[in-house]
Parts: sequence; C-alpha cells; structure tokens
Amino acid sequence: MSQKYKLLIAYDGTKYSGWQVQSNSSSIQSLIQTALSCALRKKTDVTGSGRTDRGVHALEQCAHFTFGEELDLPKLLHSLNGLLPSDIRVLSLSVVPPTFHARYSATGKIYRYHLHTGKVQSPFKRLYSYHLPYPINLELLTQAAKFFLGERDFTSFSHEAHRGSAARGGVRHLRRLEIIAKEGELILEFEANGFLYKMVRNIVGTLLDVARGKLPIESIPAILAAKDRKKASATAPPHGLFLVKVIYPLNELGIF
Amino acid sequence: MSQKYKLLIAYDGTKYSGWQVQSNSSSIQSLIQTALSCALRKKTDVTGSGRTDRGVHALEQCAHFTFGEELDLPKLLHSLNGLLPSDIRVLSLSVVPPTFHARYSATGKIYRYHLHTGKVQSPFKRLYSYHLPYPINLELLTQAAKFFLGERDFTSFSHEAHRGSAARGGVRHLRRLEIIAKEGELILEFEANGFLYKMVRNIVGTLLDVARGKLPIESIPAILAAKDRKKASATAPPHGLFLVKVIYPLNELGIF
Repeated sequence: MSQKYKLLIAYDGTKYSGWQVQSNSSSIQSLIQTALSCALRKKTDVTGSGRTDRGVHALEQCAHFTFGEELDLPKLLHSLNGLLPSDIRVLSLSVVPPTFHARYSATGKIYRYHLHTGKVQSPFKRLYSYHLPYPINLELLTQAAKFFLGERDFTSFSHEAHRGSAARGGVRHLRRLEIIAKEGELILEFEANGFLYKMVRNIVGTLLDVARGKLPIESIPAILAAKDRKKASATAPPHGLFLVKVIYPLNELGIF
Repeated sequence: MSQKYKLLIAYDGTKYSGWQVQSNSSSIQSLIQTALSCALRKKTDVTGSGRTDRGVHALEQCAHFTFGEELDLPKLLHSLNGLLPSDIRVLSLSVVPPTFHARYSATGKIYRYHLHTGKVQSPFKRLYSYHLPYPINLELLTQAAKFFLGERDFTSFSHEAHRGSAARGGVRHLRRLEIIAKEGELILEFEANGFLYKMVRNIVGTLLDVARGKLPIESIPAILAAKDRKKASATAPPHGLFLVKVIYPLNELGIF
C-alpha cells in the first residue's frame, strides 16, 4: 500500500540556485530527488512547502514524497545523508497521513533575517548574515515594523512577476515581526500564514531604509496602499535569510 | 621614526594552507603581507604569534609589523579589509611599544575545539565543528581531561617532527582545560603558556578515544611519560579548532 513520508531538511543555500528545480542550475530539490531515487532504486519526486530563492538558507524546510512500500526510515535517513552533499542534510523522516501535503497543509511559516551590525564583519558570519554598512536607529526600526503586522495586501513587497493565487492575491496575515538585538547582531523574525515571492527581503529592505533615515516612517502606509513594487525599497540580499520552520496543524501530521 | 603596529585578525581557515607562508600554497600570512604592502605602497612583512595549521580557524590571531611613518589606522583598517578576501578580516590595528613582539611577548594562548554531538551534522556547523560519529561518555571525558592539567612534557602529543625550542623542549603549562556542554555541541577550551605543534588536536584525539571507551583512562599517565607520539591516539581533524586569543602582559601592549 502506498505510503506518504515527510522530510525535514536543513541547507546552506550559498552554492545553490534555490529550492526549486530549474533547467541548467543546481537546485536543492533536484539533489534530494536524485538521492532519494538512488536510495529507493525508483525515480521519486519530492514536493516542498514552497521555494526558497538562490542563496537563501533553511533550518527546517519541509517536503513530502509517496512510496509504494513500507520503508526502514533510520536506514533511509542514513543513506540519504550519505548521498547528499554536506551542505544539505535530511534532519528527519516520518510517516504522515495520506492527506498531508507539504505545501497545501501548511498553515504558516517562520523566516529569520540576520543582520551583522559590528564594525568589521566576522568571517564566520559572512555567508549567513548581511553586514550593515551604515548605522541604524533601532527604535525607528521597531516602530516601522508595526506597520506590517496583521492581514494586509503585500503586493508592494512582492516581486513584480509574482504569481499569487487568484483567491487571496497579495493578502497575507503577518502574525509576528520580532526584532531581536544581540551583541553585534540583529535578527528580524517573521511569522505569517504565507509569504509572497521575496516578501521578507523586500520588507527588510524598506525597514532598513527607514531605520537609516533614508525613508520617512510615515510613508509605509502609502507604500502598502499603492500595491506597487516600485514604491518600496531595494530587496535585501539573500544570504541573511533563513526559512526557520513550516507550520502544520497536528491532525495533518497524524498527531491528534 | 619607525613605529610598531599590532593587528588582530580573524579568519575562516577552510580554504587556506595555514597561517605561515609556504611555497606553492595560499597562506593567511602571505595574503595579509600582500594587502599591507599594497596599502602602504611598500613591501611589509608581518610576524604572527605562531602558526595555525591547514584548515584551522582564528577568532583573534595576533601579528605585528614595523613601519617608518605614523599611520592613519582607521583608514588603513578599511583599506586592508577592502583588499583581503572576506574570509580574512583585520579586526583592529593599534600602536604598540617597540619592545612588543607578536610571538616572543605572548605569555599564553587560548584554543577551542568544537564538537558536534547531534545525530545529523548541521550544514551551518559542518566547516566549524567535528561531527562525532560515535556516542561518548561526558563524565569519562571530564575525568580524562584532568590528567593533562599543569606543567607537563607534552612530547607524546606533538608532531613527530616538531621543533620545540631547546630551552623548554616539550614542556608546557596547561593552565585550563574546560569542557562546555551545550545542546548538540561540546566545546573543549585550552589555555596554556604555549602549545606544541598539533598539541590540541592530539590531546582531543586521545580524550575522545577515552570517552568512547576505546582507550582506558589509566593509560594517559603512561602515554605522557613515554614522550612518544606513537603512544597517543590519532589527531582530531583541523576544522573543529579555533585559535581564540593570544595573551600578552599589559606593559608589552603599552598599557600600564
């Protein structure tokens, strides 16, 4: 009997063209499919919770696949990590109900954007945080972040060519935008029911322009209302961004 | 008037053949000398506190150089980091007394060895910690570490071809060997008045053999007494090792 399986995957996105399979480039999804097909001796596709862009990292991306037989999961986990490059790791494998779908069952996602605020960028953070080349006003950043909370149309903060589903268009519910300030480091944590293409990086770009005094804080509502990507600031670079977690209802995971 | 300057340097050692200039390979020292010579428009050599091996990292390596004129240090710092690759950073530049010597003034060094103890190695730690492929006994590790403390002859834990100075031979004073256990991570921090070639990695290799039950703890005194590298365990890999800090007396730094 056919069975559905869930993978949790961590990856260092530095070297890759992103999650999604694309012609002529190395994607994380294609490497996982190749490893899985090799381990199972059968061509097997995986479906992810959504794409991550070129250079974006993941602490816990989620994907599913279907297979006709019951699998020895600890053995398969070991095989997959043996076949995959060391910058992509399968963290866990589990059986999920047949109704589970990595993309459609998700009720939310958490992303984190890392900023390095020290005078000199640490060599150990260079691939995993954006080094701010200018001083910023933390109080202003905190104030500006509040404008994005709640259910809003984020069209101005998506890519011009984004393909939002017809039903909800550019509307998403940003449940949380937390600013965590540490020694030499600033983390912006976003939780929403879903994210438009490049939405986090576009919001970060605009927040940073406000926090450095380049954009008046009062202009944020107008930028949101305009539903025009050209009104918002430049996209923040990808290497500071981490997909932290994909959220699923417990019943979709087979946990009641 | 000729002036002496001190550099504090951080580097990700992954790509390099080590600190020291060697023919036909890319060393950190040579890249710093090239950047410095370019910025100062004069061939300038730097003297480090000591070498670090291929693949070993540094949070704060120290080096000095001499220059005939007074320098604009903030400007030079900026130039150097512009000329250096992003995995090598000059953290600070300062004037030191003419008696200061990066190697001979040092009264101690701190090294840290990072171990990853999780079931699956994190892609973000893969270059900066050694993933332990077997379970270890932390209590045994802590007991074993005590045998190395104090003033001892560490010849058995050095490289066969090490060139210890004639005066002190293989004797070093290990002041501290601290074991810090965190979630999925284990850090071994060493502080000594000096270290022999590969000493930290050789002690770590032996400690891990004891902690996994491969070597009886009672054999450590005999290994130390033998003064024979062949008696100790294999060298732990370089990518878990960090030079944390070089210690200098305040008066050598011109601070009274």
